[in-house]
Amino acid sequence: MKKGNVIVGQSGGPTSVINSSLAGVFKAAKDGGVDKIYGMRNGIQGLLENKYVDLKEYLKDGLDIELLKRTPSSYLGSCRFKLPEISENEQMFKDIFAILEKLEVKYFFYIGGNDSMDTTKKLSEYAKAINSDIRFMGVPKTIDNDLAVTDHTPGYGSAAKYIGSSIKEIIRDGLVYNYPSITVVEIMGRNAGWLTAAAAIAKGDDCEGVDMICLPEVDFDIDKFLAKVEENKTRSQVIAVSEGIKTKEGKYVCEMSRGDVGTDSFGHKALSGTSQYLCQLIGEKTGCKTRSVEFSTLQRCASHMASRTDVEEAFIAGSKAVEAAFDGETGKVVIFERISTAPYQMITHVADVDKIANVEKKVPMEWITSDGMNVNDKITEYIRPLIQGEMTQIMVNGLPKHIVLK
Amino acid sequence: MKKGNVIVGQSGGPTSVINSSLAGVFKAAKDGGVDKIYGMRNGIQGLLENKYVDLKEYLKDGLDIELLKRTPSSYLGSCRFKLPEISENEQMFKDIFAILEKLEVKYFFYIGGNDSMDTTKKLSEYAKAINSDIRFMGVPKTIDNDLAVTDHTPGYGSAAKYIGSSIKEIIRDGLVYNYPSITVVEIMGRNAGWLTAAAAIAKGDDCEGVDMICLPEVDFDIDKFLAKVEENKTRSQVIAVSEGIKTKEGKYVCEMSRGDVGTDSFGHKALSGTSQYLCQLIGEKTGCKTRSVEFSTLQRCASHMASRTDVEEAFIAGSKAVEAAFDGETGKVVIFERISTAPYQMITHVADVDKIANVEKKVPMEWITSDGMNVNDKITEYIRPLIQGEMTQIMVNGLPKHIVLK
Repeated sequence: MKKGNVIVGQSGGPTSVINSSLAGVFKAAKDGGVDKIYGMRNGIQGLLENKYVDLKEYLKDGLDIELLKRTPSSYLGSCRFKLPEISENEQMFKDIFAILEKLEVKYFFYIGGNDSMDTTKKLSEYAKAINSDIRFMGVPKTIDNDLAVTDHTPGYGSAAKYIGSSIKEIIRDGLVYNYPSITVVEIMGRNAGWLTAAAAIAKGDDCEGVDMICLPEVDFDIDKFLAKVEENKTRSQVIAVSEGIKTKEGKYVCEMSRGDVGTDSFGHKALSGTSQYLCQLIGEKTGCKTRSVEFSTLQRCASHMASRTDVEEAFIAGSKAVEAAFDGETGKVVIFERISTAPYQMITHVADVDKIANVEKKVPMEWITSDGMNVNDKITEYIRPLIQGEMTQIMVNGLPKHIVLK
Repeated sequence: MKKGNVIVGQSGGPTSVINSSLAGVFKAAKDGGVDKIYGMRNGIQGLLENKYVDLKEYLKDGLDIELLKRTPSSYLGSCRFKLPEISENEQMFKDIFAILEKLEVKYFFYIGGNDSMDTTKKLSEYAKAINSDIRFMGVPKTIDNDLAVTDHTPGYGSAAKYIGSSIKEIIRDGLVYNYPSITVVEIMGRNAGWLTAAAAIAKGDDCEGVDMICLPEVDFDIDKFLAKVEENKTRSQVIAVSEGIKTKEGKYVCEMSRGDVGTDSFGHKALSGTSQYLCQLIGEKTGCKTRSVEFSTLQRCASHMASRTDVEEAFIAGSKAVEAAFDGETGKVVIFERISTAPYQMITHVADVDKIANVEKKVPMEWITSDGMNVNDKITEYIRPLIQGEMTQIMVNGLPKHIVLK
């Protein structure tokens, strides 16, 4: 029996594979002989309210693990909660550590994105400050793929696969009539265009591909955009735009239609409506029929189209975090290094969590075409291995089966 | 060698399985020894412009047929074109028949919905009037499931399966935070709520199900709707609404936000924005975070989530139309009769096309709860067999492979 218990939490926006990382943590901890494996309900925020479960009571056998790998969103629930600086509210840190001590937790795992890595960083720093031997490890997760240091992030491959498949289907649908129609698909990505760029993988010998890809990395020029649409207005077009595209004055395109937009607890603006606004402009300019499609939450929860590579890598990230913590690491995060693209070979390391927290990785400008309105083969080569393979769904009565914590 | 050639066209909005019906027509005609099997490009409208292909040149082997069954949208292209009354423009009928005579066509198949059945009806009536022996058969298709006489329509089962799966995923995603959020999902269906009702199948022992289902069959009462949302505002909710919901004054909800909406060539209003408008009202009323999701074209083209039952039935509908035409039928459409639900047994018949053209079948009021804000088990029992089974996708390089007519 391993000395000390494990606690694991999930934080930030859900993905199709965040539960696979949870499965990876659970399996590795259990195989490592850990007595209690606790799951925080709703991340660190729930933990502060003493909300946690004993995961061994819920994940009983191999089938439960397989279902967990196929269930989208965060099995344990999530939160959007930013830990204060230690100096601002030391009491909160004391409270968290008191709960961890009570539960005899020695290993703490937090699965999430930028903001969650910030949480992991602060907790490990506080542990150091108070000479606690509790180890804190981050497990990366985000469909946005915007974490620094790591080659890519679990969650991205599945979202990219869903986007690629759906764009292919939308292109088939959009080209069906004998008159031009223009479809603008809005894809998530506040500051980084990784997800929107995944629209490029639709193109192939059985698909015309999208006509334009507009990323937040490039200042969005409405006149240039409309001119390009106008140029091809005799045929149907499908255009992929990021929700986060901004003009060179720094104004979000979605703000141009809606005026002021709300912000969340991290101060992030609520973005939505970009494609709709552009469709309106295109309709006025060209007189063509337009259609706006927003993938919305579908792109982050469509586990029925998950990439097996992504699911397996998410699982590996979870288990490698446990392995590293057992080896004495703390304040670290599991990262991926790509050894080669063809054939695809990937290995994991651990890196200091402060190298990854609060840093955003964007699409390199060399992967964007010089006119700023598409991407080149570099990015499709990068994405392609990440979308390989499918998870055979466990279908019950015609629908994919999930596992739910009640 | 069968005397006389075959021509087949696809019309109206695309579905995930309209190509499976095309495959069924093609296979049965080929097996029946037909020399030339023509495909109209963009339906009757393309035919009028002499646009057609010799399908044997494109569908070479069994793999092509399998790919066709897995390719969404209309392989041959589609049109939205309403044939005039014969008395209004007889010349157009003369033109069509001249082309058919030139191609030595004896069997004409038209795969489509209400409007396409109207086309089939008029052409068969004209054939009768001029003593032509060309036979005209309809093959039903519509995700809307609103065709009369038939138990259900090919295309519906796959759309329902996609809706059920995606709603399950959205519910998992929507319940992830520890504060209430309200998601309104907008689903297609102008006058009939079959598709929106399919949201009900998400509910099960692994899914909380949706909180409300609002169909166009019931007058939409905004105050009652908001009161019900308010009642449960301490928890997260997912609500499914049809794009076609109207107030008792007959005003589309989507018109309330946007004012006047455009119409298509059939005089149908362009509906969209219902969920967005309701989210705005809900936000104002409850102060909760809201999210609007529109399945948009995804629900009719997501062949990656097609129901195998639906794909196979669509194929059967195509081949049965050919069989009936060979047997001398004309002015008919293939319909489905459900012999039993459990176990599911279905047989086909042919019915007069004028029984199905221009008639809309709605969700029976007995299948809607008495408060008008949900559906009961009758409809889930009805839908369940139609979503059974999956089509193994033919994956190439991480994405489903399609077959495309170039």
